[in-house]
Amino acid sequence: MRSAVLSVGTEILFGQITNTNSVYISQQLNLLGFDVLYHYTVGDNDGRLSEMVDLAFKDCDLIITSGGLGPTEDDMTKETVCKVMGDNLVEHEPSMEALVEGSKKLGHKLTENNYKQAMMPSKATVFDNDAGSAPGFALEKNGKIIICMPGPPREMTRMFQRRVKPFLEKYQDKAIYYKTLRFFGKGESSLETDLLDLIDAQKDPTIATYAKEGECTVRVASKRDTLEEAKKAVADTTDIIVSRLGQYIYSIDDEELVQVVGRKLLEKGITISCAESCTGGMFAETLTSVPGISEVFDRGLVTYTANAKIDELGVREDTITKHTVYSAEVAKEMAAGLYEKTGSNICVSITGIAGPGGEMPGKPVGLIYIGCAFAGDVKVREVHMRNVSRNWNRHYAVLSMLDMVNKCIDEANLN
Amino acid sequence: MRSAVLSVGTEILFGQITNTNSVYISQQLNLLGFDVLYHYTVGDNDGRLSEMVDLAFKDCDLIITSGGLGPTEDDMTKETVCKVMGDNLVEHEPSMEALVEGSKKLGHKLTENNYKQAMMPSKATVFDNDAGSAPGFALEKNGKIIICMPGPPREMTRMFQRRVKPFLEKYQDKAIYYKTLRFFGKGESSLETDLLDLIDAQKDPTIATYAKEGECTVRVASKRDTLEEAKKAVADTTDIIVSRLGQYIYSIDDEELVQVVGRKLLEKGITISCAESCTGGMFAETLTSVPGISEVFDRGLVTYTANAKIDELGVREDTITKHTVYSAEVAKEMAAGLYEKTGSNICVSITGIAGPGGEMPGKPVGLIYIGCAFAGDVKVREVHMRNVSRNWNRHYAVLSMLDMVNKCIDEANLN
Repeated sequence: MRSAVLSVGTEILFGQITNTNSVYISQQLNLLGFDVLYHYTVGDNDGRLSEMVDLAFKDCDLIITSGGLGPTEDDMTKETVCKVMGDNLVEHEPSMEALVEGSKKLGHKLTENNYKQAMMPSKATVFDNDAGSAPGFALEKNGKIIICMPGPPREMTRMFQRRVKPFLEKYQDKAIYYKTLRFFGKGESSLETDLLDLIDAQKDPTIATYAKEGECTVRVASKRDTLEEAKKAVADTTDIIVSRLGQYIYSIDDEELVQVVGRKLLEKGITISCAESCTGGMFAETLTSVPGISEVFDRGLVTYTANAKIDELGVREDTITKHTVYSAEVAKEMAAGLYEKTGSNICVSITGIAGPGGEMPGKPVGLIYIGCAFAGDVKVREVHMRNVSRNWNRHYAVLSMLDMVNKCIDEANLN
Repeated sequence: MRSAVLSVGTEILFGQITNTNSVYISQQLNLLGFDVLYHYTVGDNDGRLSEMVDLAFKDCDLIITSGGLGPTEDDMTKETVCKVMGDNLVEHEPSMEALVEGSKKLGHKLTENNYKQAMMPSKATVFDNDAGSAPGFALEKNGKIIICMPGPPREMTRMFQRRVKPFLEKYQDKAIYYKTLRFFGKGESSLETDLLDLIDAQKDPTIATYAKEGECTVRVASKRDTLEEAKKAVADTTDIIVSRLGQYIYSIDDEELVQVVGRKLLEKGITISCAESCTGGMFAETLTSVPGISEVFDRGLVTYTANAKIDELGVREDTITKHTVYSAEVAKEMAAGLYEKTGSNICVSITGIAGPGGEMPGKPVGLIYIGCAFAGDVKVREVHMRNVSRNWNRHYAVLSMLDMVNKCIDEANLN
């Protein structure tokens, strides 16, 4: 079913709240196998609202609205929908009873405008609201369906799960399945180039690439008669992509890199410590965002000054003088010194230039060195980052550290 | 000017990403004094995109789009906009140079589809992108303006501030001025209650309160015939608010708390080090997001295990046994030990429970202790956080640390 998500609320147009309802409703509709063609947002304005409904029905069979079902004068979704669908509002007895009951419980006196919330289109299927006072409803006419839900996300999501989803399942024609593959170390253009034959030939499954904060994802989606068929189609295409580009893929289940690394460390009981310079604690902070990581994460040192590197990690002054602090040698000594000190299984270090200042001859902003002491060996990786901004650089540097740790763990497995 | 915000991207319709661009653009347009009438989102689909542009122009004079300017085949915003506005794409030399220059720096080879990003409508005002590869542009025809920006929020917001805002300021009819006051340690409801008389009586300037990630802001905005009038109106209202609630205000210029603290440390040449437990490096990471901070930030220790606290900071085993690691005593010894070790002017420490697990009898999730050694004294602050989530707790804990450091610096000044 082709569908549109219509949000009603002036506060969205003011940028005062983020429209999370349309995200949720879209996800749910996609999971049901319905295509979402449009999101619209309008204020509490009768003319623009009815225009949007008319427009959406030109292209779509289903409109889901949220917002504008409240008791106040500017809430006019129901009235507008009635006008467009040729219905009229009548008192809905179960809704009125629920309203009276609810206000008794809270010890509130119902005001005149409260009663408005129990008025429903005469031909509607009404959805009760067990998390608030505004019921929702579905109204059908000539094969077109409009479903109206309240705006507060908690009320809307509950109503969707309890009432709207079962209502919509009757209209499902196909089953949908998708997988999201996550890549690191490969840009979107280059990724697309490597998959161009698949993308050009795609019909089902569809393949879509996205760039996101230094990473790339590929979504493989299929819509078939049965879920099994869809799953098989996605698995077949995923296999081809993995066979081509497996070295860049760290998850085929849309798992974040830090989650992948955290999970592996915990599963294998590998302890870890880190020594950071340019990332300023961001690696430690990122890794410790994983709940339970305290079982394997011993400590992190943010050795920002040269002095701190010498003091805390035993980096030799001589090495710094000879190679500068931004060098493979210093990264190596940082990791080795940290291992000396902590005995953690993996000791990862970083030094480099996050910018905007700090560059030196032969050492541009965006140059980083990552050291990794593991299984009796200290490896160093040199990375030239795109130097987008200080924060982006730091973020990308942390991803690079996580990627190096991830690969270390995987390689150790091979032996 | 009546305006519409148009987002382009199939990933939004799939519910894979939240549309924060429309929030940001709406806020910015409202600040410029433009009305936002609609938000639309469409996929990368030529027909639907051009239909939306046509529709928006019926009612609006300005459309701002984001997304669909990438190098890949499904990116078609430019082509569609050209069709609607009666223009055609030509090679834009400065964009081509920037593209070639950028790829050289990265050592990437430009692929065929990369060049697409340097093609621009022939009559466009081009906006360069210093945070990514896709330039944006504005195209005017018969008093209607369409502005196209790239989709990644970081690129879009930079382009808006650097290029689009100055471009749009020419179309402002009234002068708008506003100030954003930033609060810490006061909730939004309580803030609103304290300002209720002002809020109820408001006409111009308007006063709006926002809660945001543990902080509150108050925006005082005025729209007058001249900038001077608007500035004066805002200043008068700001003075009243500061006289009432000054103790909670850390900036009257929308400066982030970390920027305020970083600036003061640098201006006064006060050195700082930190020792973190539950925040896992987030304080160091946050502080080192300030460019140039290396002049005063010596080092940070993320002493996650009890052992690391004893080893690195000389916390006594006895203190931990007696009071647990989540105690004022341990926070105090952490700060004192760090001062011993580093001699930094300010040594700030934290220990506590970020959750979701880890609570103990009498020590609920959300309880933190912050130690601060400064000017020969070690102070400890106990904070009970709302325990919203692990990440929120860590974020709020870092703000509390920054607030304590900020107050320490201010108090020292009084002596």
